[in-house]
Amino acid sequence: MVAVSDRREFRDLAAPETATAVIEDLDIDPGTETVSLSEARGRVLAERIDAGIDVPGFDRASMDGYAVQAEDTFEADEADPVTLSLAGEVHAGEKPEITVEFGTAVEISTGAVIPAGADAVVMVERTTATGEQVEIRTSVTPGENVMLAGADIGAGTRALGPGTTITPREIGLLSALGVDSVPVRARPTVGILSTGDELVRPGEDLDSEAGQIYDVNSDTIAAGVEEAGGVAKLYPHVADDYDEMERLLLQAAEECDLVLSSGSTSASAVDVIYRVIEERGALHLHGVAVKPGKPMLIGEIGASAYVGLPGYPVSALTIFRAFVAPRIRSAAGKRDPETAVVTGRMAVEERYEEGRRRLMPAGLVRDGAGELLVYPVDKGSGATTSLVDADGTVTVPADTAFLDAGETVDVTLFSPDVRPPRLLVVGEEDPLVSSLLDERDRPRYLPTGTRDGLRSLRDGLPDVAVAAGPLDSTPEAVELGAWSREWGLVVGEDTVIDDLDSLLSGNHTFVNCERGTGLRASLDEQLKRLADERGAALPDLAAEVPGYDRTTNSLEGPARNVRTGDADTGVALRATATNLDLDFVSLGSQPVRLLANPDRTEKAGVRAYGEALDDFDIASFDGFERE
Amino acid sequence: MVAVSDRREFRDLAAPETATAVIEDLDIDPGTETVSLSEARGRVLAERIDAGIDVPGFDRASMDGYAVQAEDTFEADEADPVTLSLAGEVHAGEKPEITVEFGTAVEISTGAVIPAGADAVVMVERTTATGEQVEIRTSVTPGENVMLAGADIGAGTRALGPGTTITPREIGLLSALGVDSVPVRARPTVGILSTGDELVRPGEDLDSEAGQIYDVNSDTIAAGVEEAGGVAKLYPHVADDYDEMERLLLQAAEECDLVLSSGSTSASAVDVIYRVIEERGALHLHGVAVKPGKPMLIGEIGASAYVGLPGYPVSALTIFRAFVAPRIRSAAGKRDPETAVVTGRMAVEERYEEGRRRLMPAGLVRDGAGELLVYPVDKGSGATTSLVDADGTVTVPADTAFLDAGETVDVTLFSPDVRPPRLLVVGEEDPLVSSLLDERDRPRYLPTGTRDGLRSLRDGLPDVAVAAGPLDSTPEAVELGAWSREWGLVVGEDTVIDDLDSLLSGNHTFVNCERGTGLRASLDEQLKRLADERGAALPDLAAEVPGYDRTTNSLEGPARNVRTGDADTGVALRATATNLDLDFVSLGSQPVRLLANPDRTEKAGVRAYGEALDDFDIASFDGFERE
Repeated sequence: MVAVSDRREFRDLAAPETATAVIEDLDIDPGTETVSLSEARGRVLAERIDAGIDVPGFDRASMDGYAVQAEDTFEADEADPVTLSLAGEVHAGEKPEITVEFGTAVEISTGAVIPAGADAVVMVERTTATGEQVEIRTSVTPGENVMLAGADIGAGTRALGPGTTITPREIGLLSALGVDSVPVRARPTVGILSTGDELVRPGEDLDSEAGQIYDVNSDTIAAGVEEAGGVAKLYPHVADDYDEMERLLLQAAEECDLVLSSGSTSASAVDVIYRVIEERGALHLHGVAVKPGKPMLIGEIGASAYVGLPGYPVSALTIFRAFVAPRIRSAAGKRDPETAVVTGRMAVEERYEEGRRRLMPAGLVRDGAGELLVYPVDKGSGATTSLVDADGTVTVPADTAFLDAGETVDVTLFSPDVRPPRLLVVGEEDPLVSSLLDERDRPRYLPTGTRDGLRSLRDGLPDVAVAAGPLDSTPEAVELGAWSREWGLVVGEDTVIDDLDSLLSGNHTFVNCERGTGLRASLDEQLKRLADERGAALPDLAAEVPGYDRTTNSLEGPARNVRTGDADTGVALRATATNLDLDFVSLGSQPVRLLANPDRTEKAGVRAYGEALDDFDIASFDGFERE
Repeated sequence: MVAVSDRREFRDLAAPETATAVIEDLDIDPGTETVSLSEARGRVLAERIDAGIDVPGFDRASMDGYAVQAEDTFEADEADPVTLSLAGEVHAGEKPEITVEFGTAVEISTGAVIPAGADAVVMVERTTATGEQVEIRTSVTPGENVMLAGADIGAGTRALGPGTTITPREIGLLSALGVDSVPVRARPTVGILSTGDELVRPGEDLDSEAGQIYDVNSDTIAAGVEEAGGVAKLYPHVADDYDEMERLLLQAAEECDLVLSSGSTSASAVDVIYRVIEERGALHLHGVAVKPGKPMLIGEIGASAYVGLPGYPVSALTIFRAFVAPRIRSAAGKRDPETAVVTGRMAVEERYEEGRRRLMPAGLVRDGAGELLVYPVDKGSGATTSLVDADGTVTVPADTAFLDAGETVDVTLFSPDVRPPRLLVVGEEDPLVSSLLDERDRPRYLPTGTRDGLRSLRDGLPDVAVAAGPLDSTPEAVELGAWSREWGLVVGEDTVIDDLDSLLSGNHTFVNCERGTGLRASLDEQLKRLADERGAALPDLAAEVPGYDRTTNSLEGPARNVRTGDADTGVALRATATNLDLDFVSLGSQPVRLLANPDRTEKAGVRAYGEALDDFDIASFDGFERE
């Protein structure tokens, strides 16, 4: 480990524009390759394709009917048909052996070669065949119902230009030209190394007590690389060891056009990489004046380009998207997705302290008029849920001290695939609310607790707030529905608790829900009643509960702590106790209310949500009842 | 072959809405499958994913620094630091073995487990380590710089809902939860059978004289299937033979969720399929009142759903997109692409004759103000170039007799990937114009000949028109540049032609360019001069040229006919003769002018095109000179 005092600082930060320019200059061009037509979709043509043949390759019947010399029909009409003698037939895919002489006709199928002598086709609906003859009841002009050779596209004509993205329609034209493989821009190979002793691959066992966490960046950045048109290549994650890091970085540089590192947030890992790059490659830039993302490295290692991403997943993905993805796209010949920026109004004010450009994660919701509202998502830089709670980033210039509520901002979406949620629900966590959402298209549920949910509704942000427990006052809202849920204490195997009193008197370790949740408010309400009976204050009584201030962030958290033996008892819903198969002491029922933003009651997602509640079997959750 | 009189008619056509409803009812649901995280991008979650663990799984340092009991620091500031004794260190990925007692601190890395006893972290920048002790120069509150276990997401909390499209951010959250594989909607397997004796796979040899054409629909529809979220499975193409068709259709039905047939346009092939479906499956609907696409079949065969598409590629792809792709998307759980409809104004009037709903192929171009203009693309239903000359379709109701110029219409883009061209060039075909386009982003070049190019410019449609040869008058336009190109006659090996006179007097077979092209106009100009000298009329002189009316659709066409021996001589550019290594008799030079739409001179694509011409080495084309 590198001593704290030796840790590198990133004091002279480069401007973001400089970082972009340096990355643009990196050589990651993978050249061209040839792919078969069946693999060409989404690829980008490397060269112009000219038609090598005439399409069609012959004068072609475009109707079922009779090939004729047009002049033979000039006098024909319904009242006065012309009769021609039938000289034979020609089908699609056949070489015609007959010549159409004056006064004769040849039966012909759509797509067949026009026989010599003929210059037009009479459609079958305007004819009557009678044995050896055919009656023609309309006149045709020379060339009628005939597609001349090369009329679709002539040999030598420009068919598709370089840089064309190949979609089904381009595959259609290439097929018509008989082209079965095409030169396309190759996809750059991007190596991804995650660093950090604490990382464990998803799917493997995690030792949380030893501070292990799952490796988030490897698969996430790999998906980002593939989305940008690159080929991702994952390397085993590596500890903060110089020799091992050097070996892996050089191997990746050998095998890839671009190497990305990310993972550990510890300064020592960054430091080791820094040294490898300086000694075995070249460092062009370190540290960029953007938040998140300060500790970004750009350079080369061996014959490969190199970019070091920050360790926290949100920072890593944000920096990847802002700086690296555009370069991968340009190397792959892909254009920037045009639909990836949307404009909206800030739903709330947001202030900034630091003089760095900020890439602010932002969530989106449509207001009652269909306009986009934008809200900042900031759950701390270590939070991975910000990844899905936000839809994109707002770029805030370094000299901007605040964004006003109502201000218009541009949001760069995380992926072209990202869409604003159709229903934004904020407030108390509740299993029924979750289940109801399962049937909805693109919902977002931020379980912030009742208090924050109501505050947010007062600010006009969510479509629906979920409020549980005793409420002092609620903002103006339309109630979509209400139910009650039974709550109480979950109790571990060797613990004896019958009521709230026994929680107070005993020596049981307890786990609470967070402040601001309805579950905690109901517990406090009962503790307050007990305190009043005893002539005491609530805080005094709470102090008698060992672990009253020990909280978890989720509704099921206390019960899960009890199940693992980390606590003797905790506050929970009966439904949770049933679900986790734990003993339960009921302390009552609390109301839960779905409160719609009054401006959004006509929003499709909100209306459907209310209707879904009306149809829902509420009693399928143990202890739940419709109010 | 089925006799003409027996051919099936589609007289009682179903409404398009009926066809949509019948296709929606088809059972092609492929169920769910489990995929690894690295294969999950773009897939759709089949089930809700709740957090199985707390993230983080432990109270975690969010800064490099010192873990302390916050109370120890309450008095500390820069002026009056507090000194704590150093009890050890804990790094990310380590299980702390130390307890932080009152008066002590433990050095801690970002991401490490907060040791027992500690409840806050002082960031390293506010400390000074001195051997066995550390000076703390700031106060911290309990919980400061600590991320509590479950603070990111708590075990049991709803993480991702069913129906969520998996993008990099979802992969990030799943990784954080340790999930390495997810249940997703399976992709429906769609079998594709092309029918028709005349079809040849791209890449194979084509016998045009026998009426063979390349199979366009197989790869095109396959690409459409993949784009919609299905897995395409190609079957060998099959002739109009009942037994063979039955065998292949039943095999495909066995192996696929949905079988599509398409290919031959001949009524007999449709008829054979019709019989197989009726005898070995069920036919729900045949014939839909939509143009293109009348002969559409919907039914079942074996345990699979079946849809029969029209044979012409544009019709097949249009019907596939309008009716089949939405069903494949819904089976795969994919939502309809939201960006696939754009609104524009009709650039020209368009009239309709038939009382069927029409899916009109339409091209797009932005006018000088950035607004989208929409123009119909109708090159006949057999043309494959319509695939790339159009950007989408305008749905015109059955009772609409015409669309007015300037009328607002919605265009459903062919693919979400389709973008309107950035530069629309219409007019004379010219190799220099093509080469200049190779450097441009998303150009479209419609080589309609000079006359139609100028007409189109007069209508205000293209950005740039290319005019070649003698011009009577030109519409108001801004000349971007001009050059001259040498033209004359290409001459086959055993042919002796020295000038125009020898063309007239000889018995040589000649190939001309189409009416309306500048090349033909220059030839006519010289013929006219000759006619005037002889006191004759142009048509009389033209009649002396065998093949004067035999034309090809492309600039190089006549020369290619000469090269293959199909003609003795033809009109061509010197550049073409050089390119194809043919003898050439010069007849003069003709001017070529790039004429910009006066409203579009500031359009980026137009300006860049003019600039590119200024820099271009015009003489790199044989016989070309800058004017």
